[in-house]
Amino acid sequence: MALSSVRIVGIDPGLRCTGWGIVDCQGARLSFVACGHLKSTTGDPLAYRLRELYEGLGSTIATFHPDEAAVEETFVNDNPRATLKLGQARGMALLAPALLGLQIAEYPPNLVKKAVVGAGHADKNQVQAMIGYLLPKAKFETADEADALAIAICHAHHRRQNVLLAEATKAAVR
Amino acid sequence: MALSSVRIVGIDPGLRCTGWGIVDCQGARLSFVACGHLKSTTGDPLAYRLRELYEGLGSTIATFHPDEAAVEETFVNDNPRATLKLGQARGMALLAPALLGLQIAEYPPNLVKKAVVGAGHADKNQVQAMIGYLLPKAKFETADEADALAIAICHAHHRRQNVLLAEATKAAVR
Repeated sequence: MALSSVRIVGIDPGLRCTGWGIVDCQGARLSFVACGHLKSTTGDPLAYRLRELYEGLGSTIATFHPDEAAVEETFVNDNPRATLKLGQARGMALLAPALLGLQIAEYPPNLVKKAVVGAGHADKNQVQAMIGYLLPKAKFETADEADALAIAICHAHHRRQNVLLAEATKAAVR
Repeated sequence: MALSSVRIVGIDPGLRCTGWGIVDCQGARLSFVACGHLKSTTGDPLAYRLRELYEGLGSTIATFHPDEAAVEETFVNDNPRATLKLGQARGMALLAPALLGLQIAEYPPNLVKKAVVGAGHADKNQVQAMIGYLLPKAKFETADEADALAIAICHAHHRRQNVLLAEATKAAVR
């Protein structure tokens, strides 16, 4: 895997809405490729909502051919039912790139904010302003898309350290 | 879908170990087909552990060709990290049969126990004794396998009511 040029898909998993954002990373230079969000049909059974999101994510990966994926670590809150729902969406968001053979990194929300803004407790407006600065051509419609781009940017910054780990994990599933 | 003859795979999802059990159901008569469990490699990254379980489950479905799947609803407990892990395994356990086109039903643990033993608060020993009675040829090695067979038995008992719902949900994802 060359450090000089890589395409990254950032994924912000959610059962209702999963955001994705794709960024090219050439050395220290980042450029916006695309972003979007996938919605599942409220009222459908859970298995089919997960399938709908999985197929959308698979189609996105097939269209843009990212080399690596980065997924936000789900915020664990005090509502067990909400945590379970997020966990199920997160299982889908990790499986989709894993089954397509991508290397996958995970980052907690505060590390994502720190990588983009410089502070782990930055608010959404600060994160979105910095995405506009780092990726001038980025056009995001929803907070999920902005979050997914932030995760991709975070991975671009951290991937040098992650290269060895990713190679090791890839070898482990061969 | 005929009510008279169907093969059911019951799935007891877990990140460390996922149990599966397959039962044939002809009218009111049940018969044991097979059961087993899938382990993920502790220490591997989460995405690859989910992929390992998904591929094992897909291989099981491809071998035994069940018509329908039944998945236990995860017990939501007070430990958010444990709930998140279970949620991720559950997302995998629902996606595997959904992507292979199976109809999927979900049952909470107390309904599974009630269907097998007749009481929602039955203990594991009572459940396993009743599986031995209902499926005399069943040979299960682990509690996960017994739980998966119990879920399949529960679905066999409830599927008459579920037929209309399953047909409706299948139509919804076409």
